[in-house]
Amino acid sequence: MSTEKIPYKIYIEESEMPKQWYNVRADMKKKPAPLLNPVTKQPITAEELSEVFCDELVKQELDETNAYIDIPEEIREFYRMYRPAPLVRAYCLEKALGTPAKIYYKFEGNNTSGSHKLNSAIAQAYYAKQQGLKGVTTETGAGQWGTALSMACSYFDLDCQVYMVKVSYEQKPFRREVMRTYGANVTPSPSMLTEVGRKINAEFPGTNGSLGCAISEAVEAASNQEGYRYVLGSVLSQVLLHQTVIGLETKIAMDKYDIKPDIIIGCAGGGSNLGGLISPFMGEKLRGEADYKFIAVEPASCPSLTRGVYAYDYCDTGKVCPLQKMYTLGSGFMPSSSHAGGLRYHGMSSVLSELYDQSLMEAVSVEQTSVFDAAVKFARVEGILPAPESSHAIKVAIDEALKCKETGEEKTILFGLTGTGYFDMYAYEKFNNGVMGDYVPTDEEIKIATDKLPKF
Amino acid sequence: MSTEKIPYKIYIEESEMPKQWYNVRADMKKKPAPLLNPVTKQPITAEELSEVFCDELVKQELDETNAYIDIPEEIREFYRMYRPAPLVRAYCLEKALGTPAKIYYKFEGNNTSGSHKLNSAIAQAYYAKQQGLKGVTTETGAGQWGTALSMACSYFDLDCQVYMVKVSYEQKPFRREVMRTYGANVTPSPSMLTEVGRKINAEFPGTNGSLGCAISEAVEAASNQEGYRYVLGSVLSQVLLHQTVIGLETKIAMDKYDIKPDIIIGCAGGGSNLGGLISPFMGEKLRGEADYKFIAVEPASCPSLTRGVYAYDYCDTGKVCPLQKMYTLGSGFMPSSSHAGGLRYHGMSSVLSELYDQSLMEAVSVEQTSVFDAAVKFARVEGILPAPESSHAIKVAIDEALKCKETGEEKTILFGLTGTGYFDMYAYEKFNNGVMGDYVPTDEEIKIATDKLPKF
Repeated sequence: MSTEKIPYKIYIEESEMPKQWYNVRADMKKKPAPLLNPVTKQPITAEELSEVFCDELVKQELDETNAYIDIPEEIREFYRMYRPAPLVRAYCLEKALGTPAKIYYKFEGNNTSGSHKLNSAIAQAYYAKQQGLKGVTTETGAGQWGTALSMACSYFDLDCQVYMVKVSYEQKPFRREVMRTYGANVTPSPSMLTEVGRKINAEFPGTNGSLGCAISEAVEAASNQEGYRYVLGSVLSQVLLHQTVIGLETKIAMDKYDIKPDIIIGCAGGGSNLGGLISPFMGEKLRGEADYKFIAVEPASCPSLTRGVYAYDYCDTGKVCPLQKMYTLGSGFMPSSSHAGGLRYHGMSSVLSELYDQSLMEAVSVEQTSVFDAAVKFARVEGILPAPESSHAIKVAIDEALKCKETGEEKTILFGLTGTGYFDMYAYEKFNNGVMGDYVPTDEEIKIATDKLPKF
Repeated sequence: MSTEKIPYKIYIEESEMPKQWYNVRADMKKKPAPLLNPVTKQPITAEELSEVFCDELVKQELDETNAYIDIPEEIREFYRMYRPAPLVRAYCLEKALGTPAKIYYKFEGNNTSGSHKLNSAIAQAYYAKQQGLKGVTTETGAGQWGTALSMACSYFDLDCQVYMVKVSYEQKPFRREVMRTYGANVTPSPSMLTEVGRKINAEFPGTNGSLGCAISEAVEAASNQEGYRYVLGSVLSQVLLHQTVIGLETKIAMDKYDIKPDIIIGCAGGGSNLGGLISPFMGEKLRGEADYKFIAVEPASCPSLTRGVYAYDYCDTGKVCPLQKMYTLGSGFMPSSSHAGGLRYHGMSSVLSELYDQSLMEAVSVEQTSVFDAAVKFARVEGILPAPESSHAIKVAIDEALKCKETGEEKTILFGLTGTGYFDMYAYEKFNNGVMGDYVPTDEEIKIATDKLPKF
């Protein structure tokens, strides 16, 4: 098919959709460091992890040897409702930039959760249902993960309890109502339903809440209820595994038209979408079959890869989850409240951290006004109003395309467009009104946070 | 291909996308009544219409003979950014209902305007650009049309001035910001920028505004500026023509799998999406090639087809647009403010009105709590959070599927899913909280409004 004109949107057939996720750890010679028990500081066992996660997800979390893991038919059925996601040739953006580069993006926003989060939410809900659980608990900040999990739980008739950071609960009533429409129980955090919530409310009356506190409440709620587990939307290797459906579909679509990307770009918060997009390509690189340049893009206000340290750290502020070796700014690091998008996580997936440490992947950080500038440019020519998170990747894709314009190189650039910005219009309003600023933490601020990393 | 399993989503190839719109009037033996000049009450001439609309759109508005009208390549290029829209087999809904019926829907919500409105907005912007105009003016209520027009104008670098009903401007800041992000100038109406706006502000200080007033301001703004025209998002025959891209794509997709719908359902406000969906099928019926049952679904609170009269009426409250013969509740009719969705227009497309009058199409009205009930049911099994407008069609599609469950008939049901409800969460919140009511106008209320129809 390589002689055909490449369409604006490449959809693979349903029959071509991946039947297995790809586990990149199987092809890594040096594996990511093991998770540690937060109390004993020893590598965590499957049994210990099963107190937190579903049994099947524990297996996936610890599996470093099986390259391919079957996607159960029930999950594939759900995937078929909103997937395959289109691989889009950005003809209009190329024209607007006047670049000889060929730009492609994999668009994950065509579902009600508005992002790629649904890919893992449905898997986690499925395994919870399979294990006979009654429900799951989680936290949500901006609300994308909570929305995705609500949709997944509704589909499998599982109870879904979402602890939503109070300031988001009040400022994002629409996100909250989407979750409620899908039957989720959404509680502003800190609440009076948990011990930790009551304690924080007593200590800080009128507090706006924080993600760290919401996590602690969700974990407590899961452990206090028979038949519940706590679930997470990023960072973990199991989540990255589920998200490989993004990269696998992309590769199938590209192979159909003999397209080979030179550069692959993704935004990076906890790392699950980036990891999901690049995994199959990284596998080829690890096996010596092909070479690609991978770029992780993070916000200058929360630069874990570019300015963090590679060390064991807590995944959560409550320090109840396993310790993970990763690039981190310290679990106490909080990006400025003037930072608009997500990507606020202090650390990075252990898989991506290890790949970055082995120089198999690059990373850059970008400031938010330049990100919104790229977002608006993109929206006006490509039609899609992108999420602030996704726009980090757009910014760097445009930068790379403009480099090609200077050099005349016809590089093929692929980036992940993880979602839409329909629920982020407060941030766009700030930008449209010219009152959005940039924020970069000082070396001193980062040192203070990383000095508090756990010592062994 | 008829022996293959029908996929969840049928996408036609870009090369199969329609190259012409279909003009159903060409196949109607009895044509819709002509538009009348609002002053002389005589059939309006092309020259008179050209003061309001672009020349090419005037031609389309008056064309009753050409069955196919070429879609210019520039518009087709834009269509390729967000079309083809998927034709979805609602396997999960069928399973949840336990019906032997086969349910399909054409989903028009996968673009940033969130609805089908973009199909006509891009055409109208294109012809304005071709004519060398500087910009266009329009009004918007809920904001879908304004958003679509903003996107289209941004693409063709046309100035876009949107008069947004003040209460929406304040209550829907997100819609407003999407338009501003696409470069539109959004003014709360009534404003101090027009004579009519200043007059209304003086007469009713602190008024919330109305669609009728916003139309009047937009029309005045267009006539006061050199190189501007006023544009409309529904009701007109030209808009219905552009929207036939919906039905044409649907028919191509269905033909690929030898699917023949028995019943075709669409929600009806001004009628453009319904007309666009059914036109190619109606053409077959008019030519005696096939038979289909068509159902227009309107809100019980604004029942123009089911309870209105078929008569000449004003299209706008300001009475400046041409008179149109249509099913109408009277241009002074206002649905209760407790009515949540769109579909608030007092009249109906003259093409659809004539088809309904000839008994070629049926109509039903449904109450809003039953509509939201259907919307939530649909969202939970099909994943998509539908717009309240679109949910009128869902409600009746479910009703028809349940009839099949009783009779055991394996009917094929097709409905139009015009958009997503992401910006309608206030209404969902009301429904989720159990505080949404129903409203049906009394016969007396309708009589008062229709008694005021223009007399000849």
